[in-house]
Amino acid sequence: MKITIDRLRLLKVLNTVSIAIGQKSPTPAFLNFKFEMFEDCLAITGSNNDLTIRSVLPLKEGDNDIILSFDPGATLISSKYLLEIIRRLDGNWVTIEIVDDVIAKISDEKSDFKLNSMRVEDYPELDMDIEGDKVVFNADDFKKIVSQTAFAASNKEVRPVLTAINVKANGNQMEFIATDSFRLSKKVYNTEEEYNFEVNIPVKTMVEVAKLLENGMVEMIVSDRKAVFKYENTCIYSRLINGDFPKTSRMIPDSYPYVLQVSAENFISAMSRVSLLAIERENIVKVSITREELEISSKSDQIGSANEKITDFRYAGDRFDISFNVNYVIDAIRAAQSEDVILSFAGEMSAFRVTAPNDSSIIQIITPVRSYY
Amino acid sequence: MKITIDRLRLLKVLNTVSIAIGQKSPTPAFLNFKFEMFEDCLAITGSNNDLTIRSVLPLKEGDNDIILSFDPGATLISSKYLLEIIRRLDGNWVTIEIVDDVIAKISDEKSDFKLNSMRVEDYPELDMDIEGDKVVFNADDFKKIVSQTAFAASNKEVRPVLTAINVKANGNQMEFIATDSFRLSKKVYNTEEEYNFEVNIPVKTMVEVAKLLENGMVEMIVSDRKAVFKYENTCIYSRLINGDFPKTSRMIPDSYPYVLQVSAENFISAMSRVSLLAIERENIVKVSITREELEISSKSDQIGSANEKITDFRYAGDRFDISFNVNYVIDAIRAAQSEDVILSFAGEMSAFRVTAPNDSSIIQIITPVRSYY
Repeated sequence: MKITIDRLRLLKVLNTVSIAIGQKSPTPAFLNFKFEMFEDCLAITGSNNDLTIRSVLPLKEGDNDIILSFDPGATLISSKYLLEIIRRLDGNWVTIEIVDDVIAKISDEKSDFKLNSMRVEDYPELDMDIEGDKVVFNADDFKKIVSQTAFAASNKEVRPVLTAINVKANGNQMEFIATDSFRLSKKVYNTEEEYNFEVNIPVKTMVEVAKLLENGMVEMIVSDRKAVFKYENTCIYSRLINGDFPKTSRMIPDSYPYVLQVSAENFISAMSRVSLLAIERENIVKVSITREELEISSKSDQIGSANEKITDFRYAGDRFDISFNVNYVIDAIRAAQSEDVILSFAGEMSAFRVTAPNDSSIIQIITPVRSYY
Repeated sequence: MKITIDRLRLLKVLNTVSIAIGQKSPTPAFLNFKFEMFEDCLAITGSNNDLTIRSVLPLKEGDNDIILSFDPGATLISSKYLLEIIRRLDGNWVTIEIVDDVIAKISDEKSDFKLNSMRVEDYPELDMDIEGDKVVFNADDFKKIVSQTAFAASNKEVRPVLTAINVKANGNQMEFIATDSFRLSKKVYNTEEEYNFEVNIPVKTMVEVAKLLENGMVEMIVSDRKAVFKYENTCIYSRLINGDFPKTSRMIPDSYPYVLQVSAENFISAMSRVSLLAIERENIVKVSITREELEISSKSDQIGSANEKITDFRYAGDRFDISFNVNYVIDAIRAAQSEDVILSFAGEMSAFRVTAPNDSSIIQIITPVRSYY
């Protein structure tokens, strides 16, 4: 195998593919890029078994050469070293050549690297079929879905299914739900075609796909074994997470007798100030609402107390007190992506809802805590 | 004590003074700002005993009020909480008031914080005399002295004196020397007045002072007990480090039969590429020089080899090989702050020198290592 290739184009692909490659692996071959130079394109694959990314570079793009010259072949090359070398080289073109079967020679006019490599036969067989239900998203829509839900997923492996986003398609409506069991974020997305499936996609996959997207469209193809995302010349293959996602509908109260509408920015900045003195209290703050006054407070015997008043708000309901983890509420308000937010309360110890006045597609539920004063 | 003060002016002073305040201290009072409201100014002090910073804010600056109203008095206020509160408040003016003797009330129109505080009597007595030899530096000169020497000091406490910059004044010439015993950086600075002293100032103090300076002049006042830096309304008091600084002159060879002149940028980028494959070899690279060829290489049985050739250079001397820690040489070349650098070698196992062609004020010495191939 020998390739002379546009260095910056190669670098972009290596950066993308390397997302799937870990720092450590029980399978040493997974610490490598897999290069496959075909007659008409170069395919580069990275994987950690759970997540696989494969990008394909054509020989030319319009009139511009991407690959200047080549001999077909395949090899594995250490991802850690190759990525850094390609990043730091000076030249516009770089040549990668396999010499003596297991040495990858990377060179430009000034530099000459020889990396000990592995044979392509050592790379595990991967399931790279693309079959299943195909949903096409606008890249911006997909990024918004992820930014509005992913933060609510669990980052602990105790209950693996909570580290997924639950994607449920029913007719023309698709729901994306994430919950760490203390809070929940649910995004509704309408599709032109009708679908019927339910899968748990690792939140990490969703976040990485959203980060990779620039603009245009992305295809999501789900089967009962995996989810595949296709974007430009790149395919991202992700395992699914087994297990039943919790029945979240019973976490959501039916009626809300206390409803507050307030500026997102004012509420966040007041809460973040008050929470300064709640650090040793697990960031719990208390909100007291009457029709006249919205008060946010926290108290610590050791440190002191904090108190904020907001005068510009709308409230329907009786006098009401509730305490919660301020970070959950700030996350939820940010995800609402709205100038004003509506907080709907069912009772002092009932889960409450955060919504945006003009966007019914996003609903967030947060569990309160018992007040300590 | 009660003060209503311009919030952003207060914030800037708190940021400066907080540099001297640690996260932990055996003396709890040292985790506080000391506020002293006098009839004509507010003084704020922070200290960790080794380093003390005191800034003074006047009531007015020109026609602009800094302090709108006040009752004189003094108190201690938790640095950690006060700094964050002042940072996050919204208002232009903030009021700090001591109520019930030990509660600091911090408020603006929207917010109201009460912090449990300590009495000013609990603050340790600090030596804040300003006596000794006074040297005045242009801020830019001082920053350059620090950036050209500080990196070469040791960051390990095993030999405390090596964590200092040795400042030696003799007549009109002042030397600043830092060494971690593997490399040395020496800056010569000429003064109009004559001085005669030698002190070891903690490198951390020098770095913090350099960071604080914006422009204008800074005074350095040294005695046998401490160094004081005066800049605008701020005084920085630093302990000195006891012990004899090593006699560095014998580390510097007398003659250099091998002299290389090369572009700093080309040499650094070639070395940093080659060093990619030297990570597991303590960043040791080898340089081989003839009049025709400047070659930089590294080799690892496990990973592979790297080789760079530089064609644009000047060299006087016989064929010569030397191996060194690439990070030391890159640091030294950067500190030379020159387009071209001169590396002067005395022998394969002798210390070598890095200098700038047009600046004899900065000399750097690096110890090589034995080549492993």
